[in-house]
Amino acid sequence: MVDIATRVHNTKWKIDPIIRSLLDTDFYKLLMCQSVFKHKPNTRVTFSLINRSNIPIAKLIDEIQLREQLDHVRTLKLTQGESTWLRGNTFYGKKQMFRPEFMEWFENLKLPPYDLEKKGDQYNLSFEGSWPEVMFWEIPALSIIMELRSRAVMKNMGRFELQVLYAQAMTKLWEKIKVLKDLDKLSIADFGTRRRHSFLWQDWCVQAMREGLGASFTGTSNCLIAMRREVEAIGSNGHELPMVYAASAKNDSELAKAPYKVFQDWQEDHDGNLLIILPDTYGTKNFLEKAPQWISNWTGIRVDSGNPIEGAKIAIDWWKSKGKNPKDKLIIFSDGLDATKIKELHYKFRDKTKLAFGWGTLMTNDFRGLVPNKALEPFSLVCKAVAADGKETVKLSDNPNKTLGPKKEVDRYKKVFGNCDQLKIDLIV
Amino acid sequence: MVDIATRVHNTKWKIDPIIRSLLDTDFYKLLMCQSVFKHKPNTRVTFSLINRSNIPIAKLIDEIQLREQLDHVRTLKLTQGESTWLRGNTFYGKKQMFRPEFMEWFENLKLPPYDLEKKGDQYNLSFEGSWPEVMFWEIPALSIIMELRSRAVMKNMGRFELQVLYAQAMTKLWEKIKVLKDLDKLSIADFGTRRRHSFLWQDWCVQAMREGLGASFTGTSNCLIAMRREVEAIGSNGHELPMVYAASAKNDSELAKAPYKVFQDWQEDHDGNLLIILPDTYGTKNFLEKAPQWISNWTGIRVDSGNPIEGAKIAIDWWKSKGKNPKDKLIIFSDGLDATKIKELHYKFRDKTKLAFGWGTLMTNDFRGLVPNKALEPFSLVCKAVAADGKETVKLSDNPNKTLGPKKEVDRYKKVFGNCDQLKIDLIV
Repeated sequence: MVDIATRVHNTKWKIDPIIRSLLDTDFYKLLMCQSVFKHKPNTRVTFSLINRSNIPIAKLIDEIQLREQLDHVRTLKLTQGESTWLRGNTFYGKKQMFRPEFMEWFENLKLPPYDLEKKGDQYNLSFEGSWPEVMFWEIPALSIIMELRSRAVMKNMGRFELQVLYAQAMTKLWEKIKVLKDLDKLSIADFGTRRRHSFLWQDWCVQAMREGLGASFTGTSNCLIAMRREVEAIGSNGHELPMVYAASAKNDSELAKAPYKVFQDWQEDHDGNLLIILPDTYGTKNFLEKAPQWISNWTGIRVDSGNPIEGAKIAIDWWKSKGKNPKDKLIIFSDGLDATKIKELHYKFRDKTKLAFGWGTLMTNDFRGLVPNKALEPFSLVCKAVAADGKETVKLSDNPNKTLGPKKEVDRYKKVFGNCDQLKIDLIV
Repeated sequence: MVDIATRVHNTKWKIDPIIRSLLDTDFYKLLMCQSVFKHKPNTRVTFSLINRSNIPIAKLIDEIQLREQLDHVRTLKLTQGESTWLRGNTFYGKKQMFRPEFMEWFENLKLPPYDLEKKGDQYNLSFEGSWPEVMFWEIPALSIIMELRSRAVMKNMGRFELQVLYAQAMTKLWEKIKVLKDLDKLSIADFGTRRRHSFLWQDWCVQAMREGLGASFTGTSNCLIAMRREVEAIGSNGHELPMVYAASAKNDSELAKAPYKVFQDWQEDHDGNLLIILPDTYGTKNFLEKAPQWISNWTGIRVDSGNPIEGAKIAIDWWKSKGKNPKDKLIIFSDGLDATKIKELHYKFRDKTKLAFGWGTLMTNDFRGLVPNKALEPFSLVCKAVAADGKETVKLSDNPNKTLGPKKEVDRYKKVFGNCDQLKIDLIV
């Protein structure tokens, strides 16, 4: 039977919102935000869209539609049910992960304005505001652009063509799940919100992973999906913390200490599996070599750029040098993963250390080969904190393709942190 | 929004009927039935299920469920809307294809009883009654068993596993459609009712074919789908006509004439694209060699067993020998087709004659390779007229694997019709 009310309702849509909830974002944003809210609430930060590919976004995506979607995000407020979940749910085994004063602030949060300008085939899209507020733009900005692009490509496809497109994508993911199913004691989570094909598709992928992998699927970075599907919300910290801390440093000596200051602040609030070192912002080797002893007590390291095998070996050697048993430690791989790479890394390191995988874009947006002209292939799009209190930020990374910042500052950072052993790796995503 | 009434209704289902309409059958049954209703209304015929594979049907399919489905078919009557469609619709360019006296009879038709008995791993399933009534059992009997088997195999699959299974099957069909799309002036119809995976799947396939192939997709043999989806109903005549005519023959001389008598009766009612010779029942070569001149005026020939290339060549040579231009004639291939074979036959014969394809089981039931142990692979199941007025029927066919009948009678038929050039071909379906 046709549900008449739903049909009538549907025809009244002004837009089909891509982001329908402030929780449709990555969990680590909430964790970081609470930390920032406590330690750096007044820092002014600018986030900017950076298209690391040559996809002509402004040719594919209509400016009016983009504005409608961004405007819609600014109408969102945390709902009572969402707030209840954040306040009452257990995250990483901990009750009341989010403090009452943070929740009160979050319940009143409305995202700051955006600045959008078409420049040739690209958009200049940036967001300026107090750090805890403006940081919430990163994930919606990315997922809106990715999904508008998907919609643009699929606009003229027939009903069955579309169904078969999704059928193929489902088949593709399921084949990958079959590969992962065979990996003993696998621990894998969805990290694919930001560059997902679409919200509904990510939601499907999470459920397929849950059914296909059972307990090996540990959860999703997406808070909304975690809440609705009752899976764990997963995440810890990201590069924006050291980048903004570093940019706010008053001199080179403070700059050198900035990456460690981040983690010093972090461990005030967190323990256990949330004590995950993200060492590559200014070069993994440099970071670990100069790291204070207390950091080696942390639970694990996230390997997010460069050659993952090298990154893992460096971490293991470093733990050994600090008198730690790597088998008690956790390595989280999260850079450009796909099933075959996960399998390789799993077999390479499962006897050497604890392992977890944060599987991103190639889980939630692998439509490669399914339409002509690579029109639905994912591409390397990021939205980064590019300035803090008027100073431009810098990221060196273990992969020079991920380096960010003005040349002069990059050179200064390299002097302060030491040249890093960068390895140029093509960015798929 | 949940449609509460539908949900409540669904939980009340006693069974999920596979056959929900007397029109969920092949169109040629209706055409043949009208002919039989006129020429042989009182012939008593027995149809029997024949499993030409070694699939242990009775181990896979529960007897109670099978009975429920068969019983349900016996509750069906032509609805007013269905009757209106048959009376008012144009079939093969002709209005009032079905005569009022036939329609009146059909509107009152209720299928005769069935006889079911479990014998080891197989079922003995047969139907006895007046020919025009009992012939309606063939297609529902087959599609019920095929779908019950699909259901049995899928019973313990998870929700996403199922979705991916169908996603894979969709992808598979779409890949075939892409192959067919490239064939210039293709003319192809769905002949896949009898051994389909399920009704809903056939319905999907038909719609996908229509969207993917446009005008190259000429219709479906399934009357119900033709009516609902507004595509052409396709079909002409089948082996049961010569088989029953032959079995009813009083002596060898009448037997020799029986296959031609079928077509003599047939052309009283039909013309144009419904004048399709089905020559292989007792050997194509023999049939054509001894055929009267008037049969060469018919529009085309259906090649349904043996090597299709040979069958087509024999037809073309025969037309030439009769002074006909094969380019004015139509060859319909309908035996065990798949996209690659269709492509091969298309290129081989498109300049020599008109071509059409009746694509059956490998369109509506190709789940090969999608589940372990070949559990969903289609298999060779038929339901044949095995006796007429107490005499067993015989089919020789151009493929000895399709031969039917008791040895003594087969020998007699071979004497009457001549030994046929049979070519043993493995039956996929």
